[in-house]
Amino acid sequence: MIAEVEHTEIVQSKTIRLCTPQQPFRLESGETLAEVTVVYETYGRLKEDGTNAILICHALTADAHAAGYRHADDQKPGWWHGLIGEGKALDTREYFVVCPNILGSCYGTTGPVSTNPTTGVPYRAAFPTITVRDIVRVQKLLLDRLGVQRLTTVVGSSLGGMQALEWGVMYPQFCETIIPISTAAQQPAWCIALNTAARTAIMNDPGWNNGNYERQPERGLALARMIGMISYRSPTEFDERFGRQLVDGPSLERENYFSVQSYLCYQGNKLAARFDANTYLCLTRAMDLHDIAHNRGAVDNVLRSIRARALSIGVSTDVRYPVVYQQRIVGQIPRARYVEIDSIHGHDAFLLEFGQLNAVIGSFLQRA
Amino acid sequence: MIAEVEHTEIVQSKTIRLCTPQQPFRLESGETLAEVTVVYETYGRLKEDGTNAILICHALTADAHAAGYRHADDQKPGWWHGLIGEGKALDTREYFVVCPNILGSCYGTTGPVSTNPTTGVPYRAAFPTITVRDIVRVQKLLLDRLGVQRLTTVVGSSLGGMQALEWGVMYPQFCETIIPISTAAQQPAWCIALNTAARTAIMNDPGWNNGNYERQPERGLALARMIGMISYRSPTEFDERFGRQLVDGPSLERENYFSVQSYLCYQGNKLAARFDANTYLCLTRAMDLHDIAHNRGAVDNVLRSIRARALSIGVSTDVRYPVVYQQRIVGQIPRARYVEIDSIHGHDAFLLEFGQLNAVIGSFLQRA
Repeated sequence: MIAEVEHTEIVQSKTIRLCTPQQPFRLESGETLAEVTVVYETYGRLKEDGTNAILICHALTADAHAAGYRHADDQKPGWWHGLIGEGKALDTREYFVVCPNILGSCYGTTGPVSTNPTTGVPYRAAFPTITVRDIVRVQKLLLDRLGVQRLTTVVGSSLGGMQALEWGVMYPQFCETIIPISTAAQQPAWCIALNTAARTAIMNDPGWNNGNYERQPERGLALARMIGMISYRSPTEFDERFGRQLVDGPSLERENYFSVQSYLCYQGNKLAARFDANTYLCLTRAMDLHDIAHNRGAVDNVLRSIRARALSIGVSTDVRYPVVYQQRIVGQIPRARYVEIDSIHGHDAFLLEFGQLNAVIGSFLQRA
Repeated sequence: MIAEVEHTEIVQSKTIRLCTPQQPFRLESGETLAEVTVVYETYGRLKEDGTNAILICHALTADAHAAGYRHADDQKPGWWHGLIGEGKALDTREYFVVCPNILGSCYGTTGPVSTNPTTGVPYRAAFPTITVRDIVRVQKLLLDRLGVQRLTTVVGSSLGGMQALEWGVMYPQFCETIIPISTAAQQPAWCIALNTAARTAIMNDPGWNNGNYERQPERGLALARMIGMISYRSPTEFDERFGRQLVDGPSLERENYFSVQSYLCYQGNKLAARFDANTYLCLTRAMDLHDIAHNRGAVDNVLRSIRARALSIGVSTDVRYPVVYQQRIVGQIPRARYVEIDSIHGHDAFLLEFGQLNAVIGSFLQRA
């Protein structure tokens, strides 16, 4: 089904200024951003009528670089390269695929690390509270500027799936289909709890300094990531991959005695080297505030109002957003289909199970 | 089945010195403790032949006070009061029930807060690495001193269940039955990961000071407990109990915006006020080292060597030790029965589901 394609094209991120002090962006909270800049990538070509676009919504710590390579020697392609390209589910011969870095992120789009044009210094912890609806409205401004008239689909997992659902509610005429993956219509209390622990890890770090750090509160951010990683993968995977394997020989005095500890520590430090602590606070709060029913009435009624055809994808071993949450979404959206990915990779399966995802998403889009 | 009994007796903890510099305790690691003191409680009377005893093994942060009241005005009975007493599963008219505070704990038994008799100052972080086998051997010394000849059963959940399993392996002639609850034959990698995050939370707190604190590293210990609590309860319970309920009105700037956050914060601070950080490190490490196969060959063979009749109890919503781990235990122990508690309370169900536990444990013991 899926052709093996050499996909070595170089992709350059683009930057666009969507809001200015003359035309500021009004957030759901009532506060305004005097300037909104968005970094995004596109793959494929937009048809003249602007109707063949697909929007990729990324999750908590990702960026606009969803596919392709940054330069000729780049060994690692974008984070959804397995799905985007010729012969893949999001086929660039057919679709114009857009992936913007989301509002509040630290990869080029306006967020806590951006300079506040009013003060001339970075926002840091003073960046206002944003919501998934704010993120989506910025994406809509971008698509308008790119000439997109209609989306074939909006797809995303986790925080990305929250965006896909909001797209279905906020722009019912604009989306032909939506594909929310490993997400929920309302952020569940257990996920709020996990995010709260992660934020506490950052704010407990004296280096955080109420957000006014020069040097990243690395230990706190690394611990936040460790807490996240535990719920991004499954107990089954940890058993198979690490079990009780030791780093070296027995030496009970070391903290990193088991391989799984060393893995967590590595993942924590890796994120601390590439992400920003205030951004982590900002975006996890946006996730916790995610509730498609907020100010709209009963959640089931809101889901029933979605006109787009929906493909809701769950992962058998996801402990963060167990499949019951995806099934609930499908139970209410009028034209919805549920597919479960069989994987030991838990919540992170959307970054790994490209075979199953290509088959499932590809066949869903071909029915369109 | 279970009679309602007025159970207002006052229980006094007792203290016993089991090892002295002349007869030190040799740990599995090879190090020695020059003194071992144990605090314990007993309920009911030991028969002259010493064969009607039941051993209660407590979990990570509990103590010897399993049943009864500490004083006449005490409103809250011991942590397993629902199971221990006249007419309950562990019927004190029939059994002599013993609950010792475990080695390494901070409730009277020798542990990191104890004074090292060799140096005259508290051990703190210098307390040697201990294992579940060390905990069990100290319990055996206690039972010998009390004149116990045989245990009708050894029962415990979580870290307590690890002790019950080790009892079955280490003293096959001594235990008629064992009742491991919500535990595993080997600490799973996912649980090591959770404990690692909790320990990192403590060690990241500058107040921890490599264990040499005068004042508890409260924020770190509270965060460790928050991480624990998330996995002690189930997503289902959090949804039903908290959902997206707010603490006060909407005020997006507060961190504790949702009730579930406030709950976690409360639980964290509550533990930080009653437990010791070095002890938390010590006992979670003992859990991570738990492996009934260690130095004994294949885990299945070790389980098959258990002669005691076993009742393995799992909880339907336990995310910390999912039921598959209890089922595996039952699959190998020759005379074993598996019972699943249907509860939304997850790993903490053993502290709450007294109705089901009384029925299940009571009928198991009556078959003895």
